[in-house]
Amino acid sequence: MKNYKLKIDYDGTRYYGWEHQPDRDTIQGKLETVLARMTDVPASGIALIGAGRTDAGVHARGMVASVFLETPLSCGEIRDYMNRYLPDDIAVTEVKEASERFHARYKAVGKIYRYTCFDGPVKPVFDRRYYTPLPQEADVEKMREAAAFLIGEHDFKSFCGNSHMKKSTVRRLDEIVIERRRGYLYLTFHGSGFLQNMVRIMTGTLLEVGMGRMEPERVGVILAARDRKLAGPTAPAKGLCLRKVEY
Amino acid sequence: MKNYKLKIDYDGTRYYGWEHQPDRDTIQGKLETVLARMTDVPASGIALIGAGRTDAGVHARGMVASVFLETPLSCGEIRDYMNRYLPDDIAVTEVKEASERFHARYKAVGKIYRYTCFDGPVKPVFDRRYYTPLPQEADVEKMREAAAFLIGEHDFKSFCGNSHMKKSTVRRLDEIVIERRRGYLYLTFHGSGFLQNMVRIMTGTLLEVGMGRMEPERVGVILAARDRKLAGPTAPAKGLCLRKVEY
Repeated sequence: MKNYKLKIDYDGTRYYGWEHQPDRDTIQGKLETVLARMTDVPASGIALIGAGRTDAGVHARGMVASVFLETPLSCGEIRDYMNRYLPDDIAVTEVKEASERFHARYKAVGKIYRYTCFDGPVKPVFDRRYYTPLPQEADVEKMREAAAFLIGEHDFKSFCGNSHMKKSTVRRLDEIVIERRRGYLYLTFHGSGFLQNMVRIMTGTLLEVGMGRMEPERVGVILAARDRKLAGPTAPAKGLCLRKVEY
Repeated sequence: MKNYKLKIDYDGTRYYGWEHQPDRDTIQGKLETVLARMTDVPASGIALIGAGRTDAGVHARGMVASVFLETPLSCGEIRDYMNRYLPDDIAVTEVKEASERFHARYKAVGKIYRYTCFDGPVKPVFDRRYYTPLPQEADVEKMREAAAFLIGEHDFKSFCGNSHMKKSTVRRLDEIVIERRRGYLYLTFHGSGFLQNMVRIMTGTLLEVGMGRMEPERVGVILAARDRKLAGPTAPAKGLCLRKVEY
């Protein structure tokens, strides 16, 4: 058995998220089914570990996963075999041998997520599955002011979608970059790790500020309150994409 | 009544082409329905003229159409009204007043179509509806040699999908540019006008050359023969996009 590191792109539109579920299409489920076929073991014999568990409808460009496999195939052959049998909205872009101690989730030290909105006059047609349209132009300066309150190590309980979370809700957020280009508004989050729905709730809250419905300072109050009810809505899944996992 | 010139983008994936048909979703049908609603006339009272009639599944970025309308709305208001009621795979990017003599089809003097293939190692996930994957790497040099036979004014009967075509099948093809970028292969056709399926049949034939199944010189023979049966297959619709209409 060797340990392999996989890089994966996917369009999450038609999936119930990363994590396998019985009788539902998930990214992990599709990948494990193909790996089981490739190595001739039952699907239950494959333990593919993802760097994170993206929600239903969320996309990834550069998800990382690790898996122990017994196979005579080279890394390139594994990649090509998988792409031949995967649906066309999932692609394995890279396969590498990794050390036995490599673990896609536990060894990750940072992640970059990007949320894409559009607030220009005419909504683009061709990438409509990958951005969230806004009802009016966002005030980027105010959003940046608000985002500054979130940078650093904090208890992000107010931005956690799982109300039964028993483990620590403390995370370190290194940077939020908010940029506008050709009508698109990109919110890029770089941090040590993210709680369930955390990026989407932060985005939903920053958009409240951008739409003029909330003052930037309010975001500091929400953070301190450790209460999900005070934060903004969870922004739609389709605008979110996992862009990088750091080790 | 004023004459308006519209620019339109659409993802043709789920449409039966440009031209309206009873009981089927078409681009022209969708646009006319919204224009009828906007001007409060029956849909049969709207005559939207497209620069060309794209096939089922073919896309456009910059289709041009003209239409006479009686409306108090400004050009910007027409655009915004249409985009509010159109499905999200069709967008009106520009509306301008045009002279009474402007006719989107008859006044067009040139068109640019682009066909997109992919022959790199890993098929991209996010734009999978807009390219045709190739089974092996294409020989671009041989494709360029073959394409040279098609440049100029010729009878393109061999590349016409309509076997009952009664009108002239003579067209002028100004340029075919074949480029490779990051695994994508782009075939850009610039000409005076194109016959039904002409770009897709030329592409299918050039790909036969690119895949090593046909010699470049053969394309000259096919052109001279004026026989559709000798040319290559009609390349799939999804790789084709109308990119520009010139007046």
